[in-house]
Amino acid sequence: MSETITAGMLVIGDEILSGRTKDKNIGYIAEYMTALGIDLREVRVVPDVEEDIIAALNALRTRYTYVFTTGGIGPTHDDITADCVAKAFGVSIDHDPRAVAMLRERYPNPEDLNEARLRMARIPTGSDLIENPISKAPGFVTGNVIVMAGVPSIMQAMLDNVAKTLKTGTKMLSVNVDASGFPEGAYATPLAAVQKNHPGIIIGSYPHFDGKSFTNQIVLRGRDADALDRARADVEALFAALRAAQ
Amino acid sequence: MSETITAGMLVIGDEILSGRTKDKNIGYIAEYMTALGIDLREVRVVPDVEEDIIAALNALRTRYTYVFTTGGIGPTHDDITADCVAKAFGVSIDHDPRAVAMLRERYPNPEDLNEARLRMARIPTGSDLIENPISKAPGFVTGNVIVMAGVPSIMQAMLDNVAKTLKTGTKMLSVNVDASGFPEGAYATPLAAVQKNHPGIIIGSYPHFDGKSFTNQIVLRGRDADALDRARADVEALFAALRAAQ
Repeated sequence: MSETITAGMLVIGDEILSGRTKDKNIGYIAEYMTALGIDLREVRVVPDVEEDIIAALNALRTRYTYVFTTGGIGPTHDDITADCVAKAFGVSIDHDPRAVAMLRERYPNPEDLNEARLRMARIPTGSDLIENPISKAPGFVTGNVIVMAGVPSIMQAMLDNVAKTLKTGTKMLSVNVDASGFPEGAYATPLAAVQKNHPGIIIGSYPHFDGKSFTNQIVLRGRDADALDRARADVEALFAALRAAQ
Repeated sequence: MSETITAGMLVIGDEILSGRTKDKNIGYIAEYMTALGIDLREVRVVPDVEEDIIAALNALRTRYTYVFTTGGIGPTHDDITADCVAKAFGVSIDHDPRAVAMLRERYPNPEDLNEARLRMARIPTGSDLIENPISKAPGFVTGNVIVMAGVPSIMQAMLDNVAKTLKTGTKMLSVNVDASGFPEGAYATPLAAVQKNHPGIIIGSYPHFDGKSFTNQIVLRGRDADALDRARADVEALFAALRAAQ
């Protein structure tokens, strides 16, 4: 069995906490990590406040293999992520010649590459850059922290670029068993017994309410395909028995 | 000036971290808190793991006026939020007669109110209940922690019921100034100067990228309407000057 690779995610931005912007990056990164074989274990959302960002960075980077951040790397005064990452790692930060070159590609006219835009080339010392095919200002990787834009399309392009450099583990496999027609209370006790018999498999019950009725799904997850098949067979047998008893 | 009322939010569930379910509660609660005059300061998403839930509950409940949790209060074995809240507060947990009565209303037939469903009446000692008009199993308030369902429609109904009992502060006011047509790099330096002149107002620049071009918005937030007006006038003057110079 290969090593388990874990991740935390840090969403940075007042606009998410005020409700003005609805985050679209958590769900995207969660699904992406699952497909890569990386376990996303925790997400935090913090405001554009230096001490909050640094505290969250330090909590997450010491706990997980990787930390993915979104937001706060533009040219305006409220974009403070790069400085916070440098402070969290205790490294200096300055204009990175590679990043300046990327911005020059976008702003060939020297007067357009003003002080504010050059802020986007300030990168913590020792970082690797992540190419940004859309607006050029790069993301970066400092230690185990992967710093990306908050704008979803740019974040997604950066994630594609950085993904190939990441260590990945054995993929988490997942199967669904349809429990529609049964309320959770009708199967919770026997389902708990199935869970007990399959400790290596994580079994969850997910109710969905459409405003009128519930349609539930049982989701089984695990890294061992044979063990997953055995657990699924038991869950299917459970629902076959419940149907027969109706 | 009234006291500032703060909140943290804890989203509980493997399904959010695996990407299978896309969270809809963070954005909803964020907007709701802003309308109430409560500052949402932090959000965490954790898996259905007891020690992770308890650690997050304790971190958030000691830091903010209120903590709102979503998820993990159904009848199945993976629903462990109530037990974790009891452990975090060091109080006992048992079937609450008020909650049992609510469930009896939904399941008048005694054989339908089975052991699994009765799990949903297990409430930490000393809690107030939150009525659930949809599926009856209540949410609850333990100390400053407000425990709600994960299913969005049920969470929203619970939030309406609990909202009237909450302390609220002076509402955060917000105004937008349209910056469409200008890239962030064109206004970042003068905007930082406006921010410096209005330290009581939080000024943010929010780029939106539609796949082709950016349309940016400047958002100003603050609790003092006059101060907000003065800051807005300065931001509007900035963009008027930029337009004149085009």
